[in-house]
Amino acid sequence: MSQLKQTYYEPLTEDAAIRLALGINIFTENAALTCREIGDGNLNLVFHIINEQDGKGVIIKQALPYAKVVGESWPLTVKRAKIEADALRTFGQLVPDYVPKVYFTDDLLAVTVMEDLSHLIIARTGFITGETYPLLSKHLGEYLAKTIFYTSDYGLGPSEKKAQVQKFINPELCKITEDLIFTDPYFDADTNEFEDGLHTDVEALWDDDELKFHVNVLKRSFLTEAEVLLHGDLHTGSVFAANSDTKVIDPEFAFYGPAGFDIGQVFANLLFEVIVNVPNRGLFIHHIETVWNVFKEEFTRLWNTENKEVLAKTDIFLSYNLSKFFEDAIGFAGCELIRRTVGLAHVADLDTIEDEQTRLAAKRTTLELGKILIKQRKEIFTLDAFIAKVKKVV
Amino acid sequence: MSQLKQTYYEPLTEDAAIRLALGINIFTENAALTCREIGDGNLNLVFHIINEQDGKGVIIKQALPYAKVVGESWPLTVKRAKIEADALRTFGQLVPDYVPKVYFTDDLLAVTVMEDLSHLIIARTGFITGETYPLLSKHLGEYLAKTIFYTSDYGLGPSEKKAQVQKFINPELCKITEDLIFTDPYFDADTNEFEDGLHTDVEALWDDDELKFHVNVLKRSFLTEAEVLLHGDLHTGSVFAANSDTKVIDPEFAFYGPAGFDIGQVFANLLFEVIVNVPNRGLFIHHIETVWNVFKEEFTRLWNTENKEVLAKTDIFLSYNLSKFFEDAIGFAGCELIRRTVGLAHVADLDTIEDEQTRLAAKRTTLELGKILIKQRKEIFTLDAFIAKVKKVV
Repeated sequence: MSQLKQTYYEPLTEDAAIRLALGINIFTENAALTCREIGDGNLNLVFHIINEQDGKGVIIKQALPYAKVVGESWPLTVKRAKIEADALRTFGQLVPDYVPKVYFTDDLLAVTVMEDLSHLIIARTGFITGETYPLLSKHLGEYLAKTIFYTSDYGLGPSEKKAQVQKFINPELCKITEDLIFTDPYFDADTNEFEDGLHTDVEALWDDDELKFHVNVLKRSFLTEAEVLLHGDLHTGSVFAANSDTKVIDPEFAFYGPAGFDIGQVFANLLFEVIVNVPNRGLFIHHIETVWNVFKEEFTRLWNTENKEVLAKTDIFLSYNLSKFFEDAIGFAGCELIRRTVGLAHVADLDTIEDEQTRLAAKRTTLELGKILIKQRKEIFTLDAFIAKVKKVV
Repeated sequence: MSQLKQTYYEPLTEDAAIRLALGINIFTENAALTCREIGDGNLNLVFHIINEQDGKGVIIKQALPYAKVVGESWPLTVKRAKIEADALRTFGQLVPDYVPKVYFTDDLLAVTVMEDLSHLIIARTGFITGETYPLLSKHLGEYLAKTIFYTSDYGLGPSEKKAQVQKFINPELCKITEDLIFTDPYFDADTNEFEDGLHTDVEALWDDDELKFHVNVLKRSFLTEAEVLLHGDLHTGSVFAANSDTKVIDPEFAFYGPAGFDIGQVFANLLFEVIVNVPNRGLFIHHIETVWNVFKEEFTRLWNTENKEVLAKTDIFLSYNLSKFFEDAIGFAGCELIRRTVGLAHVADLDTIEDEQTRLAAKRTTLELGKILIKQRKEIFTLDAFIAKVKKVV
């Protein structure tokens, strides 16, 4: 079955999604396809297409020309679909086990057709229902080590890395992070969302000049340090999980930035569970330790065996890089803790706590830990010191 | 007079340069033009065209598809002509007094037609003949403050800055710097050029693990920190000077990098005169002080009045930025001192000293000061401490 090539962008309907799937020869011509739009509709349409004959499916993701999270008044071009598809392909080459397969992309329609992962659950959702995914942290540690090393100057070589920096310039999605993580939570911005019971705590944030200085330094790092190709939004809502499987999705925020940003997002989103999930607290602390230990071990192996910068391959310079990543990760984790409590985009780990006093207490702990991590990141330079600090606060 | 548009690249002859000049309507049709190729032929052809009727002229600069400095075997695309023309236009808007005017560019021919500055002298050449250019450091301080502030996230805003980062990705020319400044001088590379009398000193460099660690950190900054649009080759051979005029030329190495790199190149190339030019030593030390003091004052004024990042406009974060620029500049200055003594590209300040013992002594001083600046840049955090360190060594 052939199809006339579409020459302009329009949002797909479920029928149009089926026609697209049939047109790109991933199903047989007489496949009996059904389709359901399953996206949350904030930024994208997500169509789940299934062949009723054998139960096999695909996902078609299409970018929408606006961000509904702040109303349709926040226009966003659909260029981000190309960034996402390019990032999925790049990461797919580096860590094929941890990324959905891409079957087809169309820049004009802002469409990516990819592997159906509907047998997996979003890790954050699983955590809230009591799952702990024992292999998740080992997988994420390996994912981080390989994506960070192989997209850096040391894994890729400086010239090829510059071409990648150019390809992944992503001003629109970076602006969302710059505003919602690094700016708006630190003054009385319209985008902020927090409970009345936190008003005093939030005003204390706004008055904390030392904190705001450190956030300026971390934002500066986000703005200027083109170290590696980041996922850019690596929270536990961007991870599909099962007991044996981990798949990192939705890299539309991908750009070249500081390696510690992705690591810090992982730390922070595991910390929410450390804070709220009292029965499994020890397991989530262990997850955090495993992410860093696996990352460090695998990054070290790659540094020593695959380094393209010959003079850089020394233990002391490796150690410098690991220390910088860790310090940055601690600081960025603190920013994530704070913005998920005060800023526009919240996390269900905190917001689904029904009892108000318990929920407010958890959010105060989040804010306190966030401030400590941001201000003290240069003193917290070992994993043990980090975990000790966490245990002291929660 | 019209001209058929040329559809392929070829090096211009003097006659072709005259035809080009007549074709773009900067002279009258019956102008009596003469032309002389005045380039040093390393990377570019440079045609000086004069209208014999009124003595007015222009310069036509054309990129060659190779770098002759290492033989014709180092191929370079002529894309750098577009980078240079774009950088001249950007800097021309920010500091029109200190950059040659651009009249015409052609990306295919890799040609820029620009203001004739042949009434000025290359600053390095002037220094060697005893000139001191009293306003040079004030002008360079202002040039640095304006180009650095206005091309940064704080002067331009993060989104527009990202578009500029993308436009000025410059892998080929950056590779020359990465190799010749940050790599080759620190091992027995074929490109190195140094006098037999320095052999022991150079081997000591190669064995200095502490030094090589710090150079790795500085190279990492050059590779990853997209702070501002740099000139990228701001030595005193890229500056035309007279007693009242300063013009910065040849920004073909322009890219987004750490602000301290341009400042450090200026420091280092003034330091060569501090080392070799004993009668004028005090004047050149004063030049270095003036570059930093004028830079700091003007950058501070711009930070406070033109800052696009509202939460960033604090004294403590301004101070953080200035300290980082200074520390980086000290380190990059050290790298420049060493590479001009050991690496492929030398400076006439040192090489034109006729007496061998005097010349070797000057080069040993250069190496010693370079090592100190690189290793101790975090301790040398005031201008006074920097000047005291310089005075102690020379």
